[in-house]
Amino acid sequence: MECRRKFDKILSEQTLKLELPIAFHKKVRQTLVDAMKKNGNIKERSIVLLKGDTIKFMHDQDIVEEFQQEANIFYLFGVREFDCHGVLELDTGKAFLFCRKIPDEWKIWITVKEPPFFKQQYQVDDAWFDIEMENYLKQKNPEEIHIYHGIDSDSGLSLPEPSFECLKNYTVVKDKLYDILNELRVIKHPEEIEQMKFVGKISSDAHLRVMNNIKAGMMEYQMEALYKFHVHELIGSKEKSYNCICASGEAPALLHYIDNEKQIPDNALILNDMGSKYNGYTSDITITFPSNGKFTQKQKEIYNAVYEAYTAVLSKVKAGVSWEEMHFLAERIILQHLIKLGLVVDTPIQELIEKRVSAMFFPHGLGHFMGLRVHDVGGYNPGHPPKLKDVAGLRSLRTRRVLQEGMCISVEPGCYFNKSLLHLAYNHPVVSKYLVKEKINEYLEVSGVRLEDNIVITKDGYINFTEVPRTIEEVEKACAGLPWKD
Amino acid sequence: MECRRKFDKILSEQTLKLELPIAFHKKVRQTLVDAMKKNGNIKERSIVLLKGDTIKFMHDQDIVEEFQQEANIFYLFGVREFDCHGVLELDTGKAFLFCRKIPDEWKIWITVKEPPFFKQQYQVDDAWFDIEMENYLKQKNPEEIHIYHGIDSDSGLSLPEPSFECLKNYTVVKDKLYDILNELRVIKHPEEIEQMKFVGKISSDAHLRVMNNIKAGMMEYQMEALYKFHVHELIGSKEKSYNCICASGEAPALLHYIDNEKQIPDNALILNDMGSKYNGYTSDITITFPSNGKFTQKQKEIYNAVYEAYTAVLSKVKAGVSWEEMHFLAERIILQHLIKLGLVVDTPIQELIEKRVSAMFFPHGLGHFMGLRVHDVGGYNPGHPPKLKDVAGLRSLRTRRVLQEGMCISVEPGCYFNKSLLHLAYNHPVVSKYLVKEKINEYLEVSGVRLEDNIVITKDGYINFTEVPRTIEEVEKACAGLPWKD
Repeated sequence: MECRRKFDKILSEQTLKLELPIAFHKKVRQTLVDAMKKNGNIKERSIVLLKGDTIKFMHDQDIVEEFQQEANIFYLFGVREFDCHGVLELDTGKAFLFCRKIPDEWKIWITVKEPPFFKQQYQVDDAWFDIEMENYLKQKNPEEIHIYHGIDSDSGLSLPEPSFECLKNYTVVKDKLYDILNELRVIKHPEEIEQMKFVGKISSDAHLRVMNNIKAGMMEYQMEALYKFHVHELIGSKEKSYNCICASGEAPALLHYIDNEKQIPDNALILNDMGSKYNGYTSDITITFPSNGKFTQKQKEIYNAVYEAYTAVLSKVKAGVSWEEMHFLAERIILQHLIKLGLVVDTPIQELIEKRVSAMFFPHGLGHFMGLRVHDVGGYNPGHPPKLKDVAGLRSLRTRRVLQEGMCISVEPGCYFNKSLLHLAYNHPVVSKYLVKEKINEYLEVSGVRLEDNIVITKDGYINFTEVPRTIEEVEKACAGLPWKD
Repeated sequence: MECRRKFDKILSEQTLKLELPIAFHKKVRQTLVDAMKKNGNIKERSIVLLKGDTIKFMHDQDIVEEFQQEANIFYLFGVREFDCHGVLELDTGKAFLFCRKIPDEWKIWITVKEPPFFKQQYQVDDAWFDIEMENYLKQKNPEEIHIYHGIDSDSGLSLPEPSFECLKNYTVVKDKLYDILNELRVIKHPEEIEQMKFVGKISSDAHLRVMNNIKAGMMEYQMEALYKFHVHELIGSKEKSYNCICASGEAPALLHYIDNEKQIPDNALILNDMGSKYNGYTSDITITFPSNGKFTQKQKEIYNAVYEAYTAVLSKVKAGVSWEEMHFLAERIILQHLIKLGLVVDTPIQELIEKRVSAMFFPHGLGHFMGLRVHDVGGYNPGHPPKLKDVAGLRSLRTRRVLQEGMCISVEPGCYFNKSLLHLAYNHPVVSKYLVKEKINEYLEVSGVRLEDNIVITKDGYINFTEVPRTIEEVEKACAGLPWKD
């Protein structure tokens, strides 16, 4: 075994994992059955039918794209394979999986999984090839078939729906499952919180490793490469939570800069916004640090404005607090700093907020639900405050809800000097009056700061999944490779 | 700058790059104009219209998928951005790019590129937003618009076609461009060969690094993670050539095993088939090595069968040689070894080939064209031997053509003990008679061996882009971390 010398020891001898028990999915199914019966005004002999994600090919090539399971079928069934459908009977609580019949020739090429595998692996009541759907429906003869149908409040996009020809013989109900299922997904079970803690810890370590190995003169993409490598080799996860943002120099001002192609300038800020996905659950962490390990005075000033907004929010969040109020709290603190630094004309904060001056520096929302998607569902579920589509800054706030125990959410205040946005602001008849252009120009080099943690709301506060250096002192220590925790 | 201590030095201080000059794409366009005029029986005032790949979202989320440019628009224009169209005028030789008009709000979020960027960056005659296509066509009034339309001979898939409403006012020709352009892509220009050498070298190093850092007990996905990391951090390339195959134990027998999820067994073979993409050009390298650094006797025997097929092919390939004959040469050598080892009944080789006994152990093709796709176009272009869809083994051979200078191709003989295939073979009335089941059973543990290099054909032979340990001695040396080259 030990016959070889390693030229570098880059891989972990011991990898890590955290199982998500199959029993969890069974519990979730029962929760859905109960919720549908309670809220849905449904017919008794009804079923829920979910469509998993399909296999996709790269252009016209015989190369498959990385598979990414659809969140709802994963939530309810745990199924990780492509081209599956899941059925949940609301009267009996029974669950079935339908999989694609792969041609026998494929068995030479890939791992082919068939109904006995699905039945055993996912502990459902039965599993069949999807050609059996027609027979199943004939036997069950459901009064209603509930499918997941709705428009995502962030993207405006919809998921593809199940397309079995035989569905035309039944009553397909599209207006109930979406809201009920999304609402269940908003409040996390303990098993889900464990997964998010786990992926949050590994992602935090990966960020720290990047901080410790990067400096001015190196390339932005090296940070993305090292972050992904750390998570992939250690926990086997290569599934994307979202696109890595590794921004330096002017790029941190661009909120979703994903080019990651520049050489990192000297004396610049680096903003790394990267997360991972493990057993379906996501992390989404942002750190900001100086490219040569020491903040400049101006970088410090803006960093501290964001840091104070961040700590203020964390000192207040708990069940019962309005997330929109937390967003305004962050705006207020950032504005106070900008006034103090002379970038914004000294004005009552409330006036600045009403005129949306804050949104010129902090143009995105304070945070978003997290879970099986990085921007998770339920932010604008019915019965909660609606999206403010026409208000600067708030149109990007992904929920205005009152926080409840078990909600997982990102806390991510930021302050940016985005040229395109400042150009709009200077030409705005109202907003421009509050801005001190000459002073702002002095801060353009700071570019942008964002600090982002992932937390779960508790009765009295929160549990933080993220553990990375946050104070100026901690960041500078970590950049120097020194112990940064007290 | 040097204020920090590194806890590990994992990133390269100096990254590498190799420019693909914009002038190359201009040359390619002229080649296409000439070829269309020569072969296409086209109207004089005609244009070629190509559609680049579009931006895609992950499920119903506001997260974009990694962008992968379509090969033809890259070949002719070098354009790397999403949602572009390219026009080439066959009468004037002028080239134009059309890009999408991105809403101004996006400028806060991402790098937005507009016509002046495209004109300057890609040195085309002009660039416009795609809403200008209608105006352009009105002015040009082309007699024919040639679009890329055809069914890929490997996948059976087609690319999406340009969908401008205004195209209905013109004669759109679908039966000329596909074959002509594909044929041009078969023969590589020197600039393309340089790119393939570069990505081949980096990919070879990445494979070697994996060999040096992996051993039994570790996880298959750690190999994928390290391979990808090496290429990404060093040359900035994260674009996929194809899915990484990191197979150990029983998995090497599965030709396109991409699960990469198992713990690597002791005394097992590891088959790593991984490649990369750089400036659009691909690598595709396979190595096979023992999980604890030393081959067992049976592993050696099968490895050497494949190795001899590999060297025999490399000793013969050059311009003028039939690739199909090379495939049969590899089959012959592997069969000779299997007879010698007693796995196949001693029979004239030609009979075994005619009965397709060889395809039970070597069920895929000897290799495929490479270039802007890992399985590149042109394998079954008109005027060349057609695909043999009904012949075992040969139905997976991706070309039967006579080799020409400038063709880039993979050389990848293999020998496998695939249970699904052996099951078929044992139940086949003809093939089964040639197989010695008890002896084959002794070799099941070997699972599979594949050796794959990427070469360009020259007048007298080839240039090899791949440089990895190949003989038993070299492999064992490299596994031990020793210098393996003479």
